[in-house]
Amino acid sequence: MPSSAVTIARDLIRCPSVTPAEGGALSFLQELLAGAGFSVSRVTFKDADTPDVDNLFATIGSGKPHFVFAGHTDVVPAGAAGDWRHDPFEGTISNGFLFGRGAVDMKGGIAAFAAAALEFTGETGADFGGTISLLITGDEEGPAVNGTVKLLQWAKEQGHEFDACIVGEPTNPDKLGDAIKIGRRGSLSGVISVTGIQGHVAYPHLADNPIPGLVRLLAALDALQLDRGNERFQPSNLEVVNIDVGNAAFNVIPARAEARFNIRFNDAWTLDSLKAKIRETLQGVDLGSLLLEIGFRRDASESFLTKDETLIAALGKAVEAETGRVPELSTGGGTSDARFIKNYCPVVEFGLVGQTMHKVDECAAVDDLDRLAAIYKRFLTSYFS
Amino acid sequence: MPSSAVTIARDLIRCPSVTPAEGGALSFLQELLAGAGFSVSRVTFKDADTPDVDNLFATIGSGKPHFVFAGHTDVVPAGAAGDWRHDPFEGTISNGFLFGRGAVDMKGGIAAFAAAALEFTGETGADFGGTISLLITGDEEGPAVNGTVKLLQWAKEQGHEFDACIVGEPTNPDKLGDAIKIGRRGSLSGVISVTGIQGHVAYPHLADNPIPGLVRLLAALDALQLDRGNERFQPSNLEVVNIDVGNAAFNVIPARAEARFNIRFNDAWTLDSLKAKIRETLQGVDLGSLLLEIGFRRDASESFLTKDETLIAALGKAVEAETGRVPELSTGGGTSDARFIKNYCPVVEFGLVGQTMHKVDECAAVDDLDRLAAIYKRFLTSYFS
Repeated sequence: MPSSAVTIARDLIRCPSVTPAEGGALSFLQELLAGAGFSVSRVTFKDADTPDVDNLFATIGSGKPHFVFAGHTDVVPAGAAGDWRHDPFEGTISNGFLFGRGAVDMKGGIAAFAAAALEFTGETGADFGGTISLLITGDEEGPAVNGTVKLLQWAKEQGHEFDACIVGEPTNPDKLGDAIKIGRRGSLSGVISVTGIQGHVAYPHLADNPIPGLVRLLAALDALQLDRGNERFQPSNLEVVNIDVGNAAFNVIPARAEARFNIRFNDAWTLDSLKAKIRETLQGVDLGSLLLEIGFRRDASESFLTKDETLIAALGKAVEAETGRVPELSTGGGTSDARFIKNYCPVVEFGLVGQTMHKVDECAAVDDLDRLAAIYKRFLTSYFS
Repeated sequence: MPSSAVTIARDLIRCPSVTPAEGGALSFLQELLAGAGFSVSRVTFKDADTPDVDNLFATIGSGKPHFVFAGHTDVVPAGAAGDWRHDPFEGTISNGFLFGRGAVDMKGGIAAFAAAALEFTGETGADFGGTISLLITGDEEGPAVNGTVKLLQWAKEQGHEFDACIVGEPTNPDKLGDAIKIGRRGSLSGVISVTGIQGHVAYPHLADNPIPGLVRLLAALDALQLDRGNERFQPSNLEVVNIDVGNAAFNVIPARAEARFNIRFNDAWTLDSLKAKIRETLQGVDLGSLLLEIGFRRDASESFLTKDETLIAALGKAVEAETGRVPELSTGGGTSDARFIKNYCPVVEFGLVGQTMHKVDECAAVDDLDRLAAIYKRFLTSYFS
């Protein structure tokens, strides 16, 4: 009898894989999957600026279509273990919930798709009319440099061409079946700096205060309505997240003021069109003699929307069959590794209920783990039928 | 023959009285003035939070009117002495200029009024029909806690009632005779803080960003025209001097944003009316659910305008007679100890040319020192005639 999602999740929680540590989690999966006939590779990526990261790629079957489950075994730190009702790395089951760091984000998701893949291939054998792969990485909660991005490139170099992907991140706000993510907004961060002339507050005519200029720039950004959203996406949204002047003296007019912003944007924009809009808006503000500089950060991402109706429908029907809910097709929330996978194949995301992720007493309902595995298995059956 | 302003200034510069150190400067003046018949007191004031400060009060003559010269022997640090053309504590005379820290701010001014008082009383004796005092303090360049404020109170307790005062601070922007200060703007500093709800930029509906609110508040302050100034005063002016959020993360909406401002205001306002105007302006801004806090700093000062036409005219005529210039009656620039003296008697300010004050190679023209002493002596002759 194959391992259940609950026992796999519990065993994974017992591996203290706090990012970027492997913690035994990948080795546990390797043994489990290899024992069931999967071909398993372990790949470590290195980089001058970030920690070495261990990753795992497992595959079974052959030919097209090639379906891939994606996820990460690394977790955020537990914080003070004493604040938890149960040891965060023990995997205690209590009152129908499995407790532990990673229970929902996302050792529970990995356990469910591993259990589903094991059960499906256990029934069909390796000749089920295609290929199933598991792409498991170790730095999603860290710099995200030596994980998904490089493992996708590595898999491509090994000759793997994916046709569809489900990422097992927690996507349900409240109940299992609430939402499938079929895209994500893009993200663009930038820095606005205004330089004037320092001076004494008693002699403002000898100085040029950059702060009123920065205030006008930020007011212009605040007044900007980027779009109204559309059927699939929320309106694009800009947040100014920081202002820094760094002047401790009440009698000094500062020379420089800086603000930082982040935009979450929908498919009405590309990074290029959005940068142009921000530049145009800021450059339209009268700053007198003040010097304006606008910088955009390199860690930006385009928005995307998955248009594979077959993939979406197959997953949606499996969710409905197991939960009785018609999942919302959502594009809300933050970014995920799906932003990298979408460059290789259509990708959607569905996993557990996210309420306790990154919090003390992170936990997944035991029933949800079993039902999520059932959803994934139902999806595989449909996908390969 | 009495000491000249130039030699007194040189000897004072040689005393390294970097605030709050006495550096021998007060002892030098004590010996000089006591030797000429002045009654000299040294008074040290202490305080839990600031350094002990040594001060000097010298007086000659008796009865009304009681005129007082005021100044400070403490100086700002010289910075790197190697950056100076001449040792900052040597008092070198070169090309008609006396170089050294304090040459214009304000050992030169003290030297000029001491020389004038010595010459005047040397000619008239102690029976010139009134009293002349010198009020010399030691922390004007520091916290200004244990100097003028307490020495004025001390002098009052000793039975001294002043009728008029000249502060010997450098008041001339360009040439000796440019300007007498007959008042000063007030100063009010404050802190505006806006508190919202922290959150992730991808979920702005779960957060409440304080920055757009702060931007609207600062825009309202920027749009505020407090007044248009008047015959004696520049328009009141508000400068936002700092904004601080302290959020390093581009993906976090901060909980709190703070701005600091300083207002230099004329006699159209009192501290109370100005605070009310700022509160009214800020409270009129729609902030939704954001929490606004407004704080005013305690180190505020009222504006003042000296209305003693006799004092102003006597000094103005002395300036004109010695320099050929009709001095502007100014209220510009920063605050000075005159803001404390004005609570005791009418006060005006006139001294050297301020261009090099607080800078490397601070220097006073030797001719200006002699002419300033002559102006002060001419004033004394007129005042006691």
